[in-house]
Amino acid sequence: MRMVDLIHKKRSGDGLSDQEIGFIVSGYTSGDIPDYQMSALLMAIYFNGMSSEEISALTMAMAGSGEMIDLSEIAGIKVDKHSTGGVGDKISLIVGPIVAFLGVPVAKMSGRGLGHTGGTVDKLESIPGFQIELTKDAFIEAVNTNKIAIVGQSGNLAPADKKMYALRDVTATVDSIPLIASSIMSKKIASGADAIVLDVKIGSGAFMKTVEDARVLARTMVDIGKKLNRYTIAMITDMEQPLGREIGNANEIRESIEVLRGTGDKDLTEVAISVAAYMAVLGKVFGSFEEAQEAVRDIVLQGKAIDTFKRFVASQGGDPNVVDQPELLPTAAYHFEVLAEQDGFVNQIDAEHIGIAAMLLGAGRAKKEDQIDYAVGLTLNKKIGDAVKVGESLCTLHANRQEVQEVVTMIQHAYRIESGEPAPVQLIYDVIV
Amino acid sequence: MRMVDLIHKKRSGDGLSDQEIGFIVSGYTSGDIPDYQMSALLMAIYFNGMSSEEISALTMAMAGSGEMIDLSEIAGIKVDKHSTGGVGDKISLIVGPIVAFLGVPVAKMSGRGLGHTGGTVDKLESIPGFQIELTKDAFIEAVNTNKIAIVGQSGNLAPADKKMYALRDVTATVDSIPLIASSIMSKKIASGADAIVLDVKIGSGAFMKTVEDARVLARTMVDIGKKLNRYTIAMITDMEQPLGREIGNANEIRESIEVLRGTGDKDLTEVAISVAAYMAVLGKVFGSFEEAQEAVRDIVLQGKAIDTFKRFVASQGGDPNVVDQPELLPTAAYHFEVLAEQDGFVNQIDAEHIGIAAMLLGAGRAKKEDQIDYAVGLTLNKKIGDAVKVGESLCTLHANRQEVQEVVTMIQHAYRIESGEPAPVQLIYDVIV
Repeated sequence: MRMVDLIHKKRSGDGLSDQEIGFIVSGYTSGDIPDYQMSALLMAIYFNGMSSEEISALTMAMAGSGEMIDLSEIAGIKVDKHSTGGVGDKISLIVGPIVAFLGVPVAKMSGRGLGHTGGTVDKLESIPGFQIELTKDAFIEAVNTNKIAIVGQSGNLAPADKKMYALRDVTATVDSIPLIASSIMSKKIASGADAIVLDVKIGSGAFMKTVEDARVLARTMVDIGKKLNRYTIAMITDMEQPLGREIGNANEIRESIEVLRGTGDKDLTEVAISVAAYMAVLGKVFGSFEEAQEAVRDIVLQGKAIDTFKRFVASQGGDPNVVDQPELLPTAAYHFEVLAEQDGFVNQIDAEHIGIAAMLLGAGRAKKEDQIDYAVGLTLNKKIGDAVKVGESLCTLHANRQEVQEVVTMIQHAYRIESGEPAPVQLIYDVIV
Repeated sequence: MRMVDLIHKKRSGDGLSDQEIGFIVSGYTSGDIPDYQMSALLMAIYFNGMSSEEISALTMAMAGSGEMIDLSEIAGIKVDKHSTGGVGDKISLIVGPIVAFLGVPVAKMSGRGLGHTGGTVDKLESIPGFQIELTKDAFIEAVNTNKIAIVGQSGNLAPADKKMYALRDVTATVDSIPLIASSIMSKKIASGADAIVLDVKIGSGAFMKTVEDARVLARTMVDIGKKLNRYTIAMITDMEQPLGREIGNANEIRESIEVLRGTGDKDLTEVAISVAAYMAVLGKVFGSFEEAQEAVRDIVLQGKAIDTFKRFVASQGGDPNVVDQPELLPTAAYHFEVLAEQDGFVNQIDAEHIGIAAMLLGAGRAKKEDQIDYAVGLTLNKKIGDAVKVGESLCTLHANRQEVQEVVTMIQHAYRIESGEPAPVQLIYDVIV
């Protein structure tokens, strides 16, 4: 088998067999197939797409390119959750304790990644003492004891995907549905999930800009899950504006605790309830979504999962007192208010720009080497649909420096205030099963 | 400017500016742009094509990536000729002396290349003593004295094209019209041509399989020539069967001499006359093709260019006596006849397979390092339309080894003999100006 022939085949619109895809992925991982052939193939895939058989084969080949985590020592259906990413997305921090409370084991491996804020594990590290590195045995024991543990992703999970993603990033082949779908699913499968709830975000702060694109991606991933015997559900949710009101690391821990207490942002709470309910359904705790949703709503409104969250934090070395005394979390030295310059209603909040503003304050990494400042971030005091008057605060900056004019200007531009009231925000656009 | 953005631009169907193409070609030549980004761009070009502005910019950027040969010390319009390649194509060897006889300076640089037989310079090297390496001064002097010199291509002619071609070869991006056209034209422009006659071959022994494809390639190259002020004409000629009757290196020198004497293969003579006539028109010796064709036909039938050929050979150190004593050329030790196994008419000769048969005998290079055996080759005794009887010779093998069964079988399969007479062969399909 020669790589040049396989590139030619895909370029000509023909499908690649399981064997051919296996040859490509293992050859690329080992370095036998050079980057320049892989990038030509990736561009051919960008143009000609892949069949669902090819996508499944690619997913399995990438998952199998490194360590395949064996979670069989954990009793129950291991339900994982993945978001395509957005600004202020702290859903994993909220739904983990909820489904753990319901008895669904949460054995989550999460990457740090680049972005507006840190990833889930970075946010957890803002809790004093919290350890995201556990041995495999400690990880499994923690899940078996508390039904929940969240650790950093191991170095050798789906290395083929890691190498391919780095190549796609510099060859303009990132935005290909088959490549995005197989990349996400390969990591979930390598990390041992039995079932997966996918949260595909759309809007100004998301990779996918339209419901149609998101539906195609969601359907592609659900199909992969079906083919590979992982129950998979994909929700398409809103990222026209940031999710919830807090953006940052410690900030998002604080907001997650509020939601778990039943006193958090209403929209964020609604999305979290739905995600947790789908996870509980996949974990076979409930027979229907409606039943699950009702039970989860009760758990949230009664703050029943708060103790699970405390036990989870304590079991990984974190200080559980942050739950009752949020002031124990890192706090920024300075606070600034971004004021409204006109009366009206918030019609739009550009999530992408809000995210960049948070990153500029130090909440996220632009480069892998960057250090995160857990204390900094933003609190959105006004969201889409809110009435505002000149001089009211739109947003509070939590900063560890005094020169923030650039950030303030960016946030002012991110808000669009108009005299008319906007249409109500839709939180969940579709659910693909 | 970032390469990834330019890949994205081309991938999205937008055009690249002259500056952007210049950045890509110079960056790739210097090594600043890695192969993996170039191959992704090439695949995007394969799918999205290039405008004529982009193709011209690419051609000039590749031509300018290395040495640009200055032929201004040679008086007159330097008319070059290029064939897209085929089996038994010795046209350059014939038309060079003819147009030189007419006063058009032929300052030809020719590559060795890979293929069924050697390139033009390899064929010339089969003449005892012939030198294909001349200093630039000696080359110019030879052209000014004899109106003709043919030398090997310098190492640094269009290095960007050389590097890109090697990459295309292993990334399934060879068969892209904009890339083929700019590759050919960049070398012609770098080697100092004022005007160019292109011979685009179609058929079983050619890269282009249909007249339609050939027309697109021809039109693309003629347009590049127009944009860059090089008078360019493209002929589309037949390669359904090998051109002429001889395939090999010394063999093709022998056949070229026969044509120059007016006693050569009729079809080959006709094609050579047309190519030479177009070259003479571009060289402004004649005002019309018809006039030129008549004059060239007379030169050929009277053998008037034979002395020019002798002087040319002698001026580059070759033995001019080969013209009158062809036995001075390398001769193979063994001869074998491939016999017809049925009566009928030759309906088809697969040129590609005839070419491979010649290569297997040692007439061409499969790899750059391979040595050519000048003496070996094939003589086609029957061509399309010829009547044959069982036991008649279809083809004579000139070999330097005794085991040739594989080659014989390949040639037998290349001939298709049927009871019905085929349609007459068309030699020239179109001329694009």
